Amino acid sequence: MDFTFSQRSHDWLQRLDRFMREEVEPAEAEYAAQLVGGADWRKWRQPAIMESLKARAREAGLWNLFLPERDHGGAGLSNVEYAALAERMGHSFMAPEVFNCNAPDTGNMEVLVRYGSPEQQARWLAPLLAGEIRSAFCMTEPGVASSDATNMRATATIDGDEIVLNGRKWWTTGIGHPNVRFVIFMGLSDPAAEKHRRHTMVICPLDTPGITVERMLPVFGTYDEPSGHGEIRFDNVRLPLANVILGTGRGFEIAQGRLGPGRIHHCMRALGAAERTLALLCARGQERIAFGQPLVHLGGNGDIIADLRIAIEQARLLTFKAAWTIDTQGVKAAMSLISQIKVVVPNVLQDAVDAAIQIHGAAGLSDDTPLAALYGYARTLRLADGPDAVHRALIAKLELREQAANREART
Amino acid sequence: MDFTFSQRSHDWLQRLDRFMREEVEPAEAEYAAQLVGGADWRKWRQPAIMESLKARAREAGLWNLFLPERDHGGAGLSNVEYAALAERMGHSFMAPEVFNCNAPDTGNMEVLVRYGSPEQQARWLAPLLAGEIRSAFCMTEPGVASSDATNMRATATIDGDEIVLNGRKWWTTGIGHPNVRFVIFMGLSDPAAEKHRRHTMVICPLDTPGITVERMLPVFGTYDEPSGHGEIRFDNVRLPLANVILGTGRGFEIAQGRLGPGRIHHCMRALGAAERTLALLCARGQERIAFGQPLVHLGGNGDIIADLRIAIEQARLLTFKAAWTIDTQGVKAAMSLISQIKVVVPNVLQDAVDAAIQIHGAAGLSDDTPLAALYGYARTLRLADGPDAVHRALIAKLELREQAANREART
Amino acid sequence: MDFTFSQRSHDWLQRLDRFMREEVEPAEAEYAAQLVGGADWRKWRQPAIMESLKARAREAGLWNLFLPERDHGGAGLSNVEYAALAERMGHSFMAPEVFNCNAPDTGNMEVLVRYGSPEQQARWLAPLLAGEIRSAFCMTEPGVASSDATNMRATATIDGDEIVLNGRKWWTTGIGHPNVRFVIFMGLSDPAAEKHRRHTMVICPLDTPGITVERMLPVFGTYDEPSGHGEIRFDNVRLPLANVILGTGRGFEIAQGRLGPGRIHHCMRALGAAERTLALLCARGQERIAFGQPLVHLGGNGDIIADLRIAIEQARLLTFKAAWTIDTQGVKAAMSLISQIKVVVPNVLQDAVDAAIQIHGAAGLSDDTPLAALYGYARTLRLADGPDAVHRALIAKLELREQAANREART
Amino acid sequence: MDFTFSQRSHDWLQRLDRFMREEVEPAEAEYAAQLVGGADWRKWRQPAIMESLKARAREAGLWNLFLPERDHGGAGLSNVEYAALAERMGHSFMAPEVFNCNAPDTGNMEVLVRYGSPEQQARWLAPLLAGEIRSAFCMTEPGVASSDATNMRATATIDGDEIVLNGRKWWTTGIGHPNVRFVIFMGLSDPAAEKHRRHTMVICPLDTPGITVERMLPVFGTYDEPSGHGEIRFDNVRLPLANVILGTGRGFEIAQGRLGPGRIHHCMRALGAAERTLALLCARGQERIAFGQPLVHLGGNGDIIADLRIAIEQARLLTFKAAWTIDTQGVKAAMSLISQIKVVVPNVLQDAVDAAIQIHGAAGLSDDTPLAALYGYARTLRLADGPDAVHRALIAKLELREQAANREART
Repeated sequence: MDFTFSQRSHDWLQRLDRFMREEVEPAEAEYAAQLVGGADWRKWRQPAIMESLKARAREAGLWNLFLPERDHGGAGLSNVEYAALAERMGHSFMAPEVFNCNAPDTGNMEVLVRYGSPEQQARWLAPLLAGEIRSAFCMTEPGVASSDATNMRATATIDGDEIVLNGRKWWTTGIGHPNVRFVIFMGLSDPAAEKHRRHTMVICPLDTPGITVERMLPVFGTYDEPSGHGEIRFDNVRLPLANVILGTGRGFEIAQGRLGPGRIHHCMRALGAAERTLALLCARGQERIAFGQPLVHLGGNGDIIADLRIAIEQARLLTFKAAWTIDTQGVKAAMSLISQIKVVVPNVLQDAVDAAIQIHGAAGLSDDTPLAALYGYARTLRLADGPDAVHRALIAKLELREQAANREART
Repeated sequence: MDFTFSQRSHDWLQRLDRFMREEVEPAEAEYAAQLVGGADWRKWRQPAIMESLKARAREAGLWNLFLPERDHGGAGLSNVEYAALAERMGHSFMAPEVFNCNAPDTGNMEVLVRYGSPEQQARWLAPLLAGEIRSAFCMTEPGVASSDATNMRATATIDGDEIVLNGRKWWTTGIGHPNVRFVIFMGLSDPAAEKHRRHTMVICPLDTPGITVERMLPVFGTYDEPSGHGEIRFDNVRLPLANVILGTGRGFEIAQGRLGPGRIHHCMRALGAAERTLALLCARGQERIAFGQPLVHLGGNGDIIADLRIAIEQARLLTFKAAWTIDTQGVKAAMSLISQIKVVVPNVLQDAVDAAIQIHGAAGLSDDTPLAALYGYARTLRLADGPDAVHRALIAKLELREQAANREART
Repeated sequence: MDFTFSQRSHDWLQRLDRFMREEVEPAEAEYAAQLVGGADWRKWRQPAIMESLKARAREAGLWNLFLPERDHGGAGLSNVEYAALAERMGHSFMAPEVFNCNAPDTGNMEVLVRYGSPEQQARWLAPLLAGEIRSAFCMTEPGVASSDATNMRATATIDGDEIVLNGRKWWTTGIGHPNVRFVIFMGLSDPAAEKHRRHTMVICPLDTPGITVERMLPVFGTYDEPSGHGEIRFDNVRLPLANVILGTGRGFEIAQGRLGPGRIHHCMRALGAAERTLALLCARGQERIAFGQPLVHLGGNGDIIADLRIAIEQARLLTFKAAWTIDTQGVKAAMSLISQIKVVVPNVLQDAVDAAIQIHGAAGLSDDTPLAALYGYARTLRLADGPDAVHRALIAKLELREQAANREART
Repeated sequence: MDFTFSQRSHDWLQRLDRFMREEVEPAEAEYAAQLVGGADWRKWRQPAIMESLKARAREAGLWNLFLPERDHGGAGLSNVEYAALAERMGHSFMAPEVFNCNAPDTGNMEVLVRYGSPEQQARWLAPLLAGEIRSAFCMTEPGVASSDATNMRATATIDGDEIVLNGRKWWTTGIGHPNVRFVIFMGLSDPAAEKHRRHTMVICPLDTPGITVERMLPVFGTYDEPSGHGEIRFDNVRLPLANVILGTGRGFEIAQGRLGPGRIHHCMRALGAAERTLALLCARGQERIAFGQPLVHLGGNGDIIADLRIAIEQARLLTFKAAWTIDTQGVKAAMSLISQIKVVVPNVLQDAVDAAIQIHGAAGLSDDTPLAALYGYARTLRLADGPDAVHRALIAKLELREQAANREART
């Protein structure tokens, strides 16, 4: 057992850390100032500072770090190695896009690298890898409990040499971004097939007739400009069969492979955010005086800090273990661990933010600190990629299966 | 011991309930539609539907119910009696204003009824009681930990026959409302006096030279249009001494009396909101199907519902007990209970909203349901009128004093 | 709404309180010293001090206070009125027996008063009411999940004019007491009947051939001498049909009526124990010094005290409300509330004891304080009369039913 | 980062696991049957089966595995390597002694190996290493808050060429064991010295005149026969100065070094116990049927299992990290981590046991399962070696120091 980062990982982290400190973190205010449009999403623009940071990051070789495949321009890092970098990126909302490591593009790039046809790769993957365009992923639907993915009702029906998309999707993250050019749409193709062979993934250019982005959905009143989370109507959207990824009925198969590493990324970024939150909490609590003492020395505040430190430390180790298990034994062996971090990490972040808001007083509710936005981020993570309850159910199922097998083995 | 509402209380509740069902609740959508301005608070307008509802409520006699003093047009209800009505109002964000029972005007009216001079009452109390104007209360300051009220730094300095206000206040709720005409300002008059005799309350018309409303503060990205929470600068704001309430150095004395009933109102409204939240949770959980069952039958969801029912039930009884103690033994005897409800109730509401969001999935984060707004409301209540920690400290202090006295008595 | 005790209730409480302070509490050490036998339950004896306290209590009229029925020698108190007395009794383990108000005899007396034949009352109820004998109740079985009472497997089979008992019962509380003379046995009579008409209650004298008390079960290593919790085998125990209570197949009907008030008693006693626990916590925390300060001023200890005060306060009000609902609307209307207190109160007590142990340091684990015993008591209550989970499930079911009805009513 | 066990560690674990399965676990019932004396500690005997298991373990080379120093007969394992073995031993109460790895002898052996004079090692260390005798450690005192070690009041006074011990110690674990021959006593030598230079450790043979073992202290009614936790009086106990370890005034220096690895051992054993607990919970929950389903499928039981799995997983990783930090950077660098595991692990075990008891119903309270004993073990661990609160305070202090340094570094 060895908790040291590999030399390579350590070097990457140094480089990334310097870029974060020197370029990204100082640019947060300018980025915020360049955002325009507010709730009126049709006016959103990509801040110039973002494109210039992207250019510098790419120049510095800090680009597509999430992608293991070197032959597609990835950095060749393992999940464990990238995890440490994802945590560092998590300190700033801007960072993932700066390094072309932002969801959902990362997931879409992974899908296209692994399952895309050469034509699909040339047309859609290449500009994504270059950071020239952005993309989105259409899965969740308003009319059904999407926590049970088999509920999905939007259709992707074969009609001759075309596939026809119909239905309504929402919480399509990134769809409001001015650079978005296509979505990957997942829909029901064959209701009669075995439960996990019914759905198909289709590349759907945004300018295809029949697609209507109806609105952006706020998260606690915030629109995550200029990316957003959209609701989209698909009315008889016709695409050539060449836009199907991997083959009809193989949507779940693709989704499975997509989720493992993505959850590691989400969780490590969330842990970076939790570290930033704890730092804000401590700074405020050490500087503010009430009843003659810094807040951190009053009542149970020390306990709160200790408990957060413990929680973050544990959640980080668990996430590294999940990443390492994917690296060494594959996603399937890591299934319980992946669900475990998906439960734990967003809750740790939510607790940290809640405590930090309390220490900041009402300032913590406003936009004078990043805390209110961090709360929305944490709260969203407890739902995105499956709510806590679904992951707990899976963990319990796997645990009970293993415990029964152990008992069997002993007798 | 008797948990029945008095006949009078029961009758008021019936009348209020009908008005809520028939007039207020159906108007929520229209009210929201009439709001204009969004983040740009200088464009805020009072929705016409609100004024028409106010007129109808006044006509129906559902007006100033919070105010015990009949000779000022109050309904003559005890705290226990009004508590039940406040809970019912808590089901809708609009309701308190409809019935002229909204903070901070209620607190300001109480102050003016009890401590205002006849001139102050004629000029400021009368239009407040009539619902013609609105007001705000300036206490919290950005530069200090306002949870320790003695930290307050803004000044109210006597200068001949004038009093001069200087400093900066924020989280002045309601200051953005088009109808607001004055604030009650609390500031330091005599730094050398005994700790609770240093501060003075002053009636300060909004059009007095030297007052600048600098901005509205968002709560999780939401501005609570058209009321808002503002940050205000006071630069040599000069007012006649006649604007001082009760006398210089008596600010804390007034504040003490103001807080007891106000906390009952806040808590009961929050419990009304918690009931609405639980109803939304159950409705969604009974209607949505995942894995072949309504959500409420999956995993620990039944336990969550049971725990919320228990928590709401207990918190309501505790709040009634606090109200009853104020009614029968005065605010001082109720101090621990008032702090107890101030800790418990906002946390119950926050837990309820968190659970309801989880059951709603991502819809719960958006503005398609009232849940995101309810979260902001709950979270704010954990800080407003003193953060949890300050109240817990007071409860512990009073408990330890009583336990020591009990031990003393036994020996 | 009125939180005052009735004058009668107040007077009883005064009398009881004096007797507790002057007679019961000072006798605790002597009672403990008179206990003999330890784990060897066949040597258990009733301490002489107990019988002498019982005599004095009876003389003082503090006797059978739990029993509403005056014509059977009860005090004629409502559930609300007795609740306050039960709380006071809960301060001492000895108290319930002193006042002839101890479980399971109270439940058995209620059953015999309400459902017993005149012969059953003459033979078994009279000496119980006089405190001359004790009794037990045989329900829980080792082989099945008794939280689902319909699982019960022991049989009570009609055979001509006799009823024959077979099976195994455990956690029969009080069976080790030297004064115990009979048990009420509940068994399966008619497996083919409707689920709640299958079981029968039978009065079974302890000296009936075929009954074997096999052992006493410890609770965390403690045997609750001289009452105990026994495991009993019934082998063809033959009794005349006259020993059946109310009629065959009516066991559940009797059990239902038995449980409501009993749970009030349990919960109020537990709250008395919680008050004693909090008093011990505060006393220790105010007297012990570490790092230069009394423990209560260190870290989060003040918050712990505040949270316990809030929890006890709320749980007490909820229990009074449950009692009042039984008094005014009957047990059925109080079902949810009864389950609510059954969940809340034992957990409050457990939390209080856990916190008090922590403040006492290792002393809290030993028998130098009552805390270790109080922990066993609290932990047992979370299982006795139905585990938390069963009650939560019932509360949720009733809540969902009511919420659905409310939605129905609104449309 | 690598979560694999080293080959050596893996091999040791295989050997230990086989011995546990084949020899130790099957012997638990026989060991329990051979215990005699119960509460009457003067009758306690070492069960013959224990000595025979010790002989076989020693023969198998599974002996003194905790001790890094090969030249004293230790296994030469790092803290990380031994941690995995300690976890496996934690599955059985008997195991640590079987392998001569039981507290407090392990700590005493470490002290004597590192700080003992050659004479002390020959006389006391050698028979401990051989498992021929046992020892105890006298630190905690009844009269003061021992969580603040500087409170210690018992004295170790130099008087010519002797040192004289006076005072009272309690919670001296192992003092009741028939094989115990000496204690290490820590007492105040020089009240005028700097706070951490006042105390001295002295080897004190049990047969020295002036030592009286007054009683054994129960933990929740259980005496941990045949080891026990004793209260001891020291009246003018005179010993030669040669019995002082390392030198007068160096008690804290020794204590510091003693605690790091010891806490790893405690925590890993507790995690082994937690795994055993979770296995019991799952087994019972899968086998027992209520309301037509196995308990694990009812209500929130799946969530409980998931949360326990997550908690154990995280706590184990944190403990390995603490062990690894001691191995690679020393105890001082690991201070926060050591306190973190000391807070987390006993609470995880306590929660696991509480949940398992609930699933077992009343059986979980009795001695039919190991759960009641495991509860006592978990609860004790939350106090032993410093209560939770003391460790949380240390973690917060170190965190705040580091956060302040980080802020400093950035500016």
